Parts: sequence; C-alpha cells; structure tokens
Amino acid sequence: MTVPQIPKGFRDFLPQKMTVRKRVISLMTEVFESFGFEPLDTPCLEYAETLEGKYGEEGEKLIYKFEDRGGRNVALRYDLTIPLCRVVSAYPELIKPFKRYQIAPVWRADKPQKGRFREFYQCDIDIIGTESVYAEGELLAITDTVLRRLDFDNFLIRINNRKVMNAFALCCGLQTKDFTPFLRSLDKLDKIGSEGVLKDLADIGILNSKLEKSLTDFIINHSVGSDPLSEMASIVAQTEEGEEGMAELEIIRDSLSAYGVSEDNYIFDFSLARGLDYYTGPVFETIVKEPKIGSITGGGRYDNLIGLFSKNTIPATGSSFGLERLVTVLEEQEAEKNVYGNTQVLITCFDDPLMKENMKAAAILRDSGIKTEIYFEKIKLRKQLTYAANRLINFVIIMGPDEVMEKKLTLRDMTLGTQETVLQKDMVEKIKSRLLKK
Amino acid sequence: MTVPQIPKGFRDFLPQKMTVRKRVISLMTEVFESFGFEPLDTPCLEYAETLEGKYGEEGEKLIYKFEDRGGRNVALRYDLTIPLCRVVSAYPELIKPFKRYQIAPVWRADKPQKGRFREFYQCDIDIIGTESVYAEGELLAITDTVLRRLDFDNFLIRINNRKVMNAFALCCGLQTKDFTPFLRSLDKLDKIGSEGVLKDLADIGILNSKLEKSLTDFIINHSVGSDPLSEMASIVAQTEEGEEGMAELEIIRDSLSAYGVSEDNYIFDFSLARGLDYYTGPVFETIVKEPKIGSITGGGRYDNLIGLFSKNTIPATGSSFGLERLVTVLEEQEAEKNVYGNTQVLITCFDDPLMKENMKAAAILRDSGIKTEIYFEKIKLRKQLTYAANRLINFVIIMGPDEVMEKKLTLRDMTLGTQETVLQKDMVEKIKSRLLKK
Repeated sequence: MTVPQIPKGFRDFLPQKMTVRKRVISLMTEVFESFGFEPLDTPCLEYAETLEGKYGEEGEKLIYKFEDRGGRNVALRYDLTIPLCRVVSAYPELIKPFKRYQIAPVWRADKPQKGRFREFYQCDIDIIGTESVYAEGELLAITDTVLRRLDFDNFLIRINNRKVMNAFALCCGLQTKDFTPFLRSLDKLDKIGSEGVLKDLADIGILNSKLEKSLTDFIINHSVGSDPLSEMASIVAQTEEGEEGMAELEIIRDSLSAYGVSEDNYIFDFSLARGLDYYTGPVFETIVKEPKIGSITGGGRYDNLIGLFSKNTIPATGSSFGLERLVTVLEEQEAEKNVYGNTQVLITCFDDPLMKENMKAAAILRDSGIKTEIYFEKIKLRKQLTYAANRLINFVIIMGPDEVMEKKLTLRDMTLGTQETVLQKDMVEKIKSRLLKK
Repeated sequence: MTVPQIPKGFRDFLPQKMTVRKRVISLMTEVFESFGFEPLDTPCLEYAETLEGKYGEEGEKLIYKFEDRGGRNVALRYDLTIPLCRVVSAYPELIKPFKRYQIAPVWRADKPQKGRFREFYQCDIDIIGTESVYAEGELLAITDTVLRRLDFDNFLIRINNRKVMNAFALCCGLQTKDFTPFLRSLDKLDKIGSEGVLKDLADIGILNSKLEKSLTDFIINHSVGSDPLSEMASIVAQTEEGEEGMAELEIIRDSLSAYGVSEDNYIFDFSLARGLDYYTGPVFETIVKEPKIGSITGGGRYDNLIGLFSKNTIPATGSSFGLERLVTVLEEQEAEKNVYGNTQVLITCFDDPLMKENMKAAAILRDSGIKTEIYFEKIKLRKQLTYAANRLINFVIIMGPDEVMEKKLTLRDMTLGTQETVLQKDMVEKIKSRLLKK
C-alpha cells in the first residue's frame, strides 16, 4: 500500500512548524488590532473574471483557474487585494476609512520549485477611503512594530513614490506612455543589474542621454545618500506630480519620526519600482540582509483599483507580509535557541483506579492556564518520560497510591532532570514560578 | 458597471461577523492547547482519490472535485479527518499519542440553500495512537469546557457506542452484515420518527419481532431513563462486544465525573447512530435546544480508518466543532447585549501640524495594550465623532493646540456622552480604569 501524496507545490505543516507560524500570526493580529484594524474573510474561490486582467501579464498566467461542475469559470484567489476591492464595491455601507486585515492562504498556478509554492499565506493590512498619506505612515509603523517584536535583527524598509518616479521620467524626457515600461525595466534592477536595466531601456527605445545620466547618478549609484529626498526634489520639484510626490514622502518621514521608528530601519530608495502596474503613489517593501530571500513585505497606494469594480473611485493603500518568508527568517535566527513545545506538564499514568486523580489535577492546572496533558495508558514510567522528553514537555507529574493518600505528588523538571515531592495544593504555584524562570 | 458576485454557497465575512468568529476560534484554540493539543495544517487541495470512497454514498457525491490544468483529478478537502489520516500515514515519525487540532475551511459540492454552504469551517481535535477510552473522556471534557466558556445556555452531549449497538443488533437476532443498514435506519430517527425507522427496517427486510420490541422499549421510548447504562447492559452484556462497549461507556462516565462535567450536560443515548460508516467505538454529538440547528459537535472512534492509507492500523478518535453553528447560537444568545468593536480609542485630527502629537500619543496607548486608531483627515469634529460612534469605539481623544501646549487632552466617553480634561501623562491609567468598568 502506498501512502497518498499531496499535489506538488502544496505542503503539510506539522506541529513544530505550525507553532512558529501561529506565533507570527498571533503577533501580527495583535499589532494590527492595536492600530484599529478589523478582520475580514472572503471566499477561497472567486469567479475567474473577477481576478482576470488585474495582475499584469506575468500574474495573469499564474491565476489558479478551473471549471467547476456547473461549467462556471472559477479560480482560487490569487491575492487578498482584489477580493478586498470587490468587497468594498459590494458593500458600500462599510464605514470609511475602512481598515481591515486578512491573514489567509492564496494560490498560484506556479511551477513548483525550491521556495515557490502553489499555496501560501499572505497577511494583508489595507486602509480604504482616505487620500491621506498618514495612512502610509501607519502601514510602515506597523511593519516596523511587527518586525521588531519578532526580534528581527536586520531589516530595511525601502520607500519610494510612483508620482516621483513619473515626474522623474517626465523630467528625463519620457512621454506618459513610457512611464510603465520604464518602471518595469527598473523593477529588474536587483536581477539584471544597472547594465541590464540600461540595455533593457535601450532595447525598448526609451533610453536617452539625460535619462541615462540621471538614472546613473540619482538612482543606480544612490541607494544611500546624505539626503536623497532633497536631491530628488531638486530634479522633480518643478513638476506638479513631482512636488506632490515629494510632499508625500516628507509626510511619511515625519510620521515615522513621530512613531519613533529608528532611522536605521528605513530608507528612501528611488530604485524601488515594485512590479504591479496598479500602484499610484507611495510604494514600499522590506528586505533582510540574511537569509537572501527577497522582500518580506510589500505594498503601496492603489487609488484607481477599486474603480474597476465600482462607479466611484475610492482611494486605497495597503501592505502585505509574506508569512512563509517571515517564518524562514525566524527559523534561521532561532536555530540555535532551545525550542519548547506547547504543552507544559505531563501527568503520567500509574494505573486505572488512579486516573481519576490525574484528571482532577489536570483540571486544576488547566484552569490556572497551565497546558497539561494526561498519559492515557499504563506503560512503563521510563517510556512515559521518554514521551515527555520527545514532546519537549517541561514538567512531569507522577502520582502513585502513596502520593495520592498523602495528597502529594512528584514533580520532575525535564530540563534539569531533577525531581522533588510537592504538596498537591502547592502544585500550581510551584509550576508557575518554575515556568517563569525558563 | 456591475459589482462582481461571489460563487453561490460562498460568503464574505465582514468585520462584525468576523469578530465573533475570531473570538470563538481563539477560545477553542486556548482550550485545545490547555489539554496538550498541537496545531496542524494541511493543504486545501488533495488528490481526489485520497478522498474518494471514505464518506459513504451521500458524502461521495458532495466531494468538490475538479481537473487541474495538468489534467490531474484534485478536490478541495471535504473534511479535516481524512487529511489527518493521510498525514499520520505519511509521517510515521510523529510521536504517538498524537494530539492535534486544526481549525480550517472545508468544501462541499452541495446545493446551496438556507444554512448550507459550499465553504465552511470545521474545528477538529483528534487523538491518534491510543486505544484508551480516556481519550474520549478528554474529548468530551473539552467539548463541555468550550461550550461553558462560550456561555452556552443549554447544551446536551449525547453519547453512544457502536460496539454496544452491534451487540444490541446481534442480541436482537441480526446478522453482522445487517449492522450497518440497521444503524443507517436508526440514524434517521430524528427525521422520520420511530414509525419511519420501523418501516425502513421492515422495507430492507431486517425487522423481526424481537428487534421491534427491544428497539421500541430500550431506544425509542428511552432517551432518558433512570440508569440507561445498566438497563442496556442487561441486554448486551452476555456478548463480548457488548461487555467491552459497556465498559468503555463506564470509563467515559467516570472521566466526565472526575473532570467535574455537570450531569445535566450529557446523556447516554442509545438512539444516537451518527451517519458515518467508519466509526468503531464511542460516538457522540452535542445538541442545543434553541435555535433548532442540528448538532453543533460530533465525533467518535475510528480505529480502522488510518489502515486504509498505511500498512498498520492505528487507533484514533476525534471530535469536530461546527464553527458556523456555534456562531449562530452565540449570535442568537447575544442579540440583546451591547456589542463593542475591537478598537477602543480614536484620536481625532485637528490639523496637520498637530498630527505628530496624535501619533506619539497613539504609540503610547498601543504599547500599553489599548487598541487605538488615529483619524487621518481634517474634517469637522462632529463628523469624526460620528465615525467613532458608527465604529463602536469606546473613547475619543481630542487634542487642539491649547491642550498640546498644556500637555493635556480631552477624553470623551462615547457610551456615556461625557467628556473631561485629562493630563497626557494620566491618559493610559484613566482609559484602562474606565475600560475595566465597561
């Protein structure tokens, strides 16, 4: 008999992995809610046409489409942004600004390969219904808070603005129709290098000498400068869009300062393009130095996207955390640390008549917030201790007939390998004080 | 332009609904973990053949199957039990007993109608690798704990045992091959009544006078008796399976007593069949009197199911909570109560220069665990207060230039409609003490 496989690009998450994933999810939930975001859930399945034409040429191919048994074209959701836009259009009664978070799986019909999956989680925060760039300041403060609280060693939030880049392109002599091709080329900078980008721009016929010089001076050789904002302002501020975009970046800088975000944690980086065509204002992503896994968050303003579904355009901005990449970084950072399981106490099984005492003790421990498991079968004590050790359980409680009679128990500390006799009435206090020291 | 629809039988959950759903999920998670259960996640998609042939004739039709773009037959998971069995077979290294929980959506190709959906959540706990019926005692203690902590007014856990029912059928003169048809008929009791069941049994040719009499006496007219266990024992105890089954029910009774589960909350009910063919021992479900929505939990022992995927049979037992039905009951119970939103404080926007002060105050409140939102746009104060009222936010903080200069703020209690001037340094303490009183 062969054990059934799961489809390629899909994964099981066993408890040890899940414990890390759940820790990240609950930390994010806590931070998102602390900023006033509320939960939303949408179906895993959407009509294919709801998703089609939204993700650009490359994205379009990756929509996980199929025909259902009624012959309807449906698709597993590609991301959480388009379903959100659909929801905002479908429920005009939602109070604006509408600040929602959603942490849920998405699907891509991608070729499965190392680090690329067909099913993975996105964790999105979006603010719908305000043109204010304080919204972006908040999204970035949240990004900083989440990553600091996860003890990330080394992260950098890169910030740019589509308006500034459009103004830059305009000031370098490009026409409006060339803005998107220009950004698509720039987006490949990390992959193909500056030579590659310049060649790419030449190939599509939009490279001129002014663009080449400005691009080289201000963008390619200038990811870290003394004051990138004022230098860029000197190029683009004479255009209306450039002035607007620079003012927005100033508001973001002021917001991050007011929120106390360290200047080491973010940078204004005019080489940041972000792939998606639908961004209209500030764009941002977060990278980590180690491990090399690309961006761990990404987002931006998309003021025209909801208009595709609705009579009214509604301004919107959002950011997405990639759960898998966050977990990869955490696992790398924590590889050295001692990891404990969820369960804190195992009560061993002496024999059937005494099981009632175990259940009573377990009920008391659980009511005190101590995660407690009972062993159900009368096997050798040594084997029960091995089970506790393998499960990474901190303490073992042993109660035989003598202990029960004397209202005592033996408490074994699995980390230290020591054990002591404790009065049953002191059990909770004893374990709690010991757990605090771990 | 028409707003896109979502496929029939699928649902959006807006924040107000989601808040209740998340509250139930996090309470369940807490209780499950307090009993030593660990999280597992499996793909939403499985190969169709993994699921086929497991859910009986009716279930088979409801598997949400489709062909993927590579021509493979896949299916959205039907439940969380079969994926668990696959996982247990695929990872023999998992330490046994393996106690896992999983809270996740499942799909059915059902005809969408009131209260029936194609996508809904199951919340499962299972214990794999022990034949001990203390496992069932624990599953039922968890059921009781979850429902009590959700303040359920009126619930009843019904408990039976397939071994007892087989012995009962045997003692009434049925052959082994007739046991399953007998249980399938009995399973319809709530729908078609006792007349219906007797007719059904006669139609399939397995009704005899002894079965008719015993069924009428001990099951149909006997859902509540003085001591149903000893009365049933008098019929079935002469068979080995009957004796075993009755002993298991005694262990469950003793466990529930040790865990302190109220006798009002459970009943041994020999009319309980539970639809699925794969159960082998104890079976159980929970019903509520109001609203009339069928069972809110269900489960049982399935010692032979994992053997379908693996060389070794591995004993297993589990229980499943239906999230949608739990939420329906809660919403009915709480309809009268005042519901508050997630967010506790709104800081209003006076003008741009003062926004920095708002962000600083918000950061302090959030660090103290108070969920705080900033209003981003300078609109009339009255409109900002309306926003706070509509969002069900408890407090509003107003800071104009005078307040900022004097390091004060105006704190408005949205429930009472009162406001007072507070020193900024006392803000956290003030709000926390007021929140405690709500």
